[in-house]
Amino acid sequence: MTALATPGLLALDRAAQDLLFRAARTANTFTDEPVTDAQVAAIHDLIRYGPTAYNGQPLRVLLLRSPAARARLLPHLSSSNRAKTAAAPLVAVLAADVDFHERLPELYPHRPQARDWLTDRATRVEQARFSATLQIGYLVVGVRAAGLAAGPMAGFDAAGVTREFFPDGRHETLLVMNVGHPDSASWGARLPRLSTEDVVRTL
Amino acid sequence: MTALATPGLLALDRAAQDLLFRAARTANTFTDEPVTDAQVAAIHDLIRYGPTAYNGQPLRVLLLRSPAARARLLPHLSSSNRAKTAAAPLVAVLAADVDFHERLPELYPHRPQARDWLTDRATRVEQARFSATLQIGYLVVGVRAAGLAAGPMAGFDAAGVTREFFPDGRHETLLVMNVGHPDSASWGARLPRLSTEDVVRTL
Repeated sequence: MTALATPGLLALDRAAQDLLFRAARTANTFTDEPVTDAQVAAIHDLIRYGPTAYNGQPLRVLLLRSPAARARLLPHLSSSNRAKTAAAPLVAVLAADVDFHERLPELYPHRPQARDWLTDRATRVEQARFSATLQIGYLVVGVRAAGLAAGPMAGFDAAGVTREFFPDGRHETLLVMNVGHPDSASWGARLPRLSTEDVVRTL
Repeated sequence: MTALATPGLLALDRAAQDLLFRAARTANTFTDEPVTDAQVAAIHDLIRYGPTAYNGQPLRVLLLRSPAARARLLPHLSSSNRAKTAAAPLVAVLAADVDFHERLPELYPHRPQARDWLTDRATRVEQARFSATLQIGYLVVGVRAAGLAAGPMAGFDAAGVTREFFPDGRHETLLVMNVGHPDSASWGARLPRLSTEDVVRTL
């Protein structure tokens, strides 16, 4: 891999490249402008077409809009994530539905028996986590497609969030993500990225 | 969540929405047109800006271009995935670098001590798998941004592929993905997608 990257090789126009990747940034702070349910629905309506294993679509999104719901989340976040999450226009808890296989006869109709390949819970947990994490990748892109910024956070107690918000035992929490319009204080210099030579090898 | 999805709520234009999600499809068969190293570099140069935990960027991509390399992969695929992979213009093995933390002092320079938070291998495996899977989500979008189609495959022996191609013990194989220009036989009807009401709840 010694080829130089040439943006002209992409079919996606430069404005869209910038909106989704090149100019987009992870945001820590946001303006007061709200994120509406209609925007959330438009984002989901776009990214739901992204591929998942068996078309299982295990990602589930819990929006914390009420002050009471937000207050239940904060103790499970690392201290550095609390203030920015308390102030974010929208907070989404992103989880995998471990029992996603129940809907496979509808979602994967040409092989309805796929549901029965997934009777083992440990296998399902692994598959649900993998496909839902792929879908979070699509979701980050979708949030940006709506002209918003995402602030995904790794620093939280996933087991604690699952106990708090998914006591049914059929979900695993993967990520907490703030969403909103970024404000001017949201970011500093862009962090370095690996080169193609670091990442891609050829045999 | 009863809001109806309104594409006009997105900043991304409709042609880009179609290219990346609405008209894009998982491909099983491809034309003979090759996928060049320059295209791969352009895709990586776009998607490398997607966020990862600690900016760790653990995804590694192994392109199998030689017939000998392709032949080493096929026995590890499920029988239904072999013929289409043998014939695909490009086959990529997507893996997580479990030792991604070694580069954190460079990639996360404002907190170089992050490397030392990740001395436990089991923690690193979990983090590497999570962030690399997010990056595979970005990669699916990036392949489509290049006007190509991706054919990700869940049916393969991940441990076998890891032993075959990553004997160093520092990588975990996550997915095998075919890439190329889709041909007219590549797909049938689109599979059903969950509604926003199925996926999004609000507290």
